[in-house]
Amino acid sequence: MVGYKEYLKGIRLLHDDVIKAAQERADNLAKPLGSLGKLEKIAVQLAGITGEVKNNIHKKCVIVMSADNGIVEEGVASTPQNVTLIQSINMVKKLTGISALSKQANADVKVIDIGINSDVDYPGIVNKKIRKGTANFAKGPAMTREEVETAINIGIEITSSLIHEGYDLLGTGEMGIGNTSTSSAVVMSLTDQPAAAAVGKGGGLTDEAFENKKRVIEKGIKLNCPDKNDPIDVLSKVGGLDIAGLVGCYIAAAYHRVPIVMDGVISATAAMVATELNPAVKAYIIPSHASLEPAYNIIINKLDMNPLLLMDMRLGEGTGCPLTFHIIESACSMMNHMATFEEATIDNKYLVDIR
Amino acid sequence: MVGYKEYLKGIRLLHDDVIKAAQERADNLAKPLGSLGKLEKIAVQLAGITGEVKNNIHKKCVIVMSADNGIVEEGVASTPQNVTLIQSINMVKKLTGISALSKQANADVKVIDIGINSDVDYPGIVNKKIRKGTANFAKGPAMTREEVETAINIGIEITSSLIHEGYDLLGTGEMGIGNTSTSSAVVMSLTDQPAAAAVGKGGGLTDEAFENKKRVIEKGIKLNCPDKNDPIDVLSKVGGLDIAGLVGCYIAAAYHRVPIVMDGVISATAAMVATELNPAVKAYIIPSHASLEPAYNIIINKLDMNPLLLMDMRLGEGTGCPLTFHIIESACSMMNHMATFEEATIDNKYLVDIR
Repeated sequence: MVGYKEYLKGIRLLHDDVIKAAQERADNLAKPLGSLGKLEKIAVQLAGITGEVKNNIHKKCVIVMSADNGIVEEGVASTPQNVTLIQSINMVKKLTGISALSKQANADVKVIDIGINSDVDYPGIVNKKIRKGTANFAKGPAMTREEVETAINIGIEITSSLIHEGYDLLGTGEMGIGNTSTSSAVVMSLTDQPAAAAVGKGGGLTDEAFENKKRVIEKGIKLNCPDKNDPIDVLSKVGGLDIAGLVGCYIAAAYHRVPIVMDGVISATAAMVATELNPAVKAYIIPSHASLEPAYNIIINKLDMNPLLLMDMRLGEGTGCPLTFHIIESACSMMNHMATFEEATIDNKYLVDIR
Repeated sequence: MVGYKEYLKGIRLLHDDVIKAAQERADNLAKPLGSLGKLEKIAVQLAGITGEVKNNIHKKCVIVMSADNGIVEEGVASTPQNVTLIQSINMVKKLTGISALSKQANADVKVIDIGINSDVDYPGIVNKKIRKGTANFAKGPAMTREEVETAINIGIEITSSLIHEGYDLLGTGEMGIGNTSTSSAVVMSLTDQPAAAAVGKGGGLTDEAFENKKRVIEKGIKLNCPDKNDPIDVLSKVGGLDIAGLVGCYIAAAYHRVPIVMDGVISATAAMVATELNPAVKAYIIPSHASLEPAYNIIINKLDMNPLLLMDMRLGEGTGCPLTFHIIESACSMMNHMATFEEATIDNKYLVDIR
């Protein structure tokens, strides 16, 4: 397997000429200039990614990285750790939120055990376990640098394989109790933000547990001294295997020129890390819904992105992705089925230019 | 035909018991309580509307009311008046934004000529013309009280007929050059807001034309003295036939217990008028995207609603509706296909309650 560093080097910029052609077509569609807002931006972005002005989506998949986090020992999560395993199983049984929403979007869900804290042998869950959960980062590094790199490589391997199977629109999901804590810790480490600005209540904490969560994360960062200029170091010290795996998904999608949708705060944390490793990744990412976790806002401000959906969702699992698949396919339909002024004029004696 | 007043009287409240049962099911789905946010709220609202905890959408339609507005004489629009006709024709030819987005949502589009300013005989455009455009409200009332009432009745007739054909999810669209001016005027009249707070640039105006638009609307309101306690009076003095027709759509949807999606500022203005006529209408309305027109915010604050989508769209035509149909169907899928803790327990030895 070629390592992630080679993939990072292989990421190209979007096709500038096709972006121009797509923008020209969007501007020429029979509507006031720019009046379809973000639909136009998505359509132009897709064109730059694929190299085609008109695009159709054929196969969609949400990749769910499942892993446990040692930090839950500190009482930072409202849910017991074995829920990571349980919900991963429920996903392949098509019983969870991501299952139901993906069904409606005609999208598949791929569940990867990249570090669940128990032996998992369940049909449909892809076994790529690196270790049974990370260590508690309040007491030392969550994992080794090599484990982070292996997780990124697994994300690349899984994503590349899906793309070779014909998937042309991807989403990023995760299942891992404690992963809003690791996400906040990674964001705080990379951006020098305090816990007050970057830690939220996750799945739902009491006020007391919330105060504890902020203390624990700040303590863990202080103890491990992650190097903000070395994202791999940050991930190894205070991150998680799910986040590292998703970093690989973003890298591979960008490498293979396939659009990839960002979900909530955990997925966004991985997106930020991937763009720190190579800023060219960003152009392949499409945001979805606005997460309620405060770290999310830090990330999208840094990435200069805007969410499309305001759904007050905080489930994770990648649930923002299938909702956004519909929006992306609508952007394709706009580009493919709306007439330009020129096209419409051919058989429309009434047509005038309303731009 | 029974008049709109009878329909207003016939609107019932949502099914309280079914709302409770639906909320209980949503709370019992295998996820943290409330973590699917607005999807859960929509699913519960649908249950209250239809009387069934689980819902499936079978047929969707966006109703487009097309009409011209005399106020365009005053230079308040950036687009010539004949574009109302042209785009109405382009809609039935499936060339416009609403056509392309509805195609992706598997929804139909029904275009109603309720007051286009020319003779229209085009297959697919339903002829319900009341008059060839309204009068210029900067010089006198836009139309008579009877014309408003006829337009509302037409909206009811069209909507009732679609519902009888089996449509079970509706959207509200419009085509009418000058209708951000009439919408702002109606909102200002009903809420005592000044032009500075309620008038926007519509399809796109120069700064100078924008200042003129605000002056013209304030002048028209001062001249006509609409009675804020009489929405029919307001519509007749400074409104439009498209808005009045859409008021009828909302009333009929509520009467027949069918969910109806609100689009941007014009559609939202009609929603506000309908709820002024009977507050019970509100429970049948589902918002879609956040319009960029300032009057939209006044309306949603008054209606206490929140948009689902942040798309920077300002095309009108009902384009927010098909995008929102996907979200609504996703809410149905959540309710129908996610397992409750109880359901999942039957064959899941691992399951624990994570609420």
